[in-house]
Amino acid sequence: MNTDLILKNIAKHISLTEEEKLYFLSLLKELTFKNKQYITQEGAICKHVTFINTGCCRTFNIDNNGFEHILNFASQDYWVGDLYSIITKKPGVFFIQAMEKTEVLQIAKSDLDNLYLKIPKFERMFRILTENAYVDTQNRVMEGLGLTASERYDIFTKKYSGIIHLLPQKQIALYLGVTPEFFSRMKKKSNS
Amino acid sequence: MNTDLILKNIAKHISLTEEEKLYFLSLLKELTFKNKQYITQEGAICKHVTFINTGCCRTFNIDNNGFEHILNFASQDYWVGDLYSIITKKPGVFFIQAMEKTEVLQIAKSDLDNLYLKIPKFERMFRILTENAYVDTQNRVMEGLGLTASERYDIFTKKYSGIIHLLPQKQIALYLGVTPEFFSRMKKKSNS
Repeated sequence: MNTDLILKNIAKHISLTEEEKLYFLSLLKELTFKNKQYITQEGAICKHVTFINTGCCRTFNIDNNGFEHILNFASQDYWVGDLYSIITKKPGVFFIQAMEKTEVLQIAKSDLDNLYLKIPKFERMFRILTENAYVDTQNRVMEGLGLTASERYDIFTKKYSGIIHLLPQKQIALYLGVTPEFFSRMKKKSNS
Repeated sequence: MNTDLILKNIAKHISLTEEEKLYFLSLLKELTFKNKQYITQEGAICKHVTFINTGCCRTFNIDNNGFEHILNFASQDYWVGDLYSIITKKPGVFFIQAMEKTEVLQIAKSDLDNLYLKIPKFERMFRILTENAYVDTQNRVMEGLGLTASERYDIFTKKYSGIIHLLPQKQIALYLGVTPEFFSRMKKKSNS
């Protein structure tokens, strides 16, 4: 099991003893998802928090008219999960889908709850991770309200510079909330 | 100092000893903001987390064209703050403004950091509060991408049922991301 990256990710926020590290690692399960395979699906209860070792995935929903809408993309060194479902134990509201071969480490919510009690430092780590993700999502709301699609695309290219080459144009358009045709015209205009 | 509500708010998530309660309460400062007064402003470093005892406020920004955009409203029993600024100690990106006389309890970020070290249960509480706020903001992103203004207004009326009577039509339109004129026509249509 490749645990270097997850231990480095954790070490950014908290210090663990060797014993604590071993206990944490004993809770992890290694999984590989193929391109287009689902890590979790709308309607299913999401019971795991997932750390991406390699690869890339997208979190999206499908509206009543069958259109997809993308919440975010995540790649190496990111944590993903349908947090609503994880917290409430109710059916999930998101699909999380691999966009290429994606190797992950998963921890079950039940094990995470025990981990919080046994090593409260993990409360701190997930508080900080959630705060950062929350701020990021606040920004996304404000960009949607106040910026043009072109301005949002500029921010997108910076935010996702590491994985933008992996993302089909259609997926970027879905993230920005514009049609692929509008996105294509917008890109042509900005390149001219 | 009226501390009943904040202690009840905390007791939903963690149990404190009498000594811990007294220590926590010793860190709080009681403040009253008049209608339209700012709890924090864009450009200023937000150094406090604020709990609303009575009243109501809105969190918004102003875009490059001078238009306001509303992230959310908050009333009694809610925590507010410019989290980006609180975390990074950089100038804030939001205005948080009282919409009527608003009585709050504030804790300084520096005291909160000490509190986390002294009583780690508070890490747990703020992890849970942040998770809930994050899920709420994820929903807001998806509503913006996938729902019509009318559908978003339906969700708004349920989410803010307790304070909707306090909110001017113009503020609701700003939250929904539509012009006041469009909002007025939309409401007329849905009432007819």
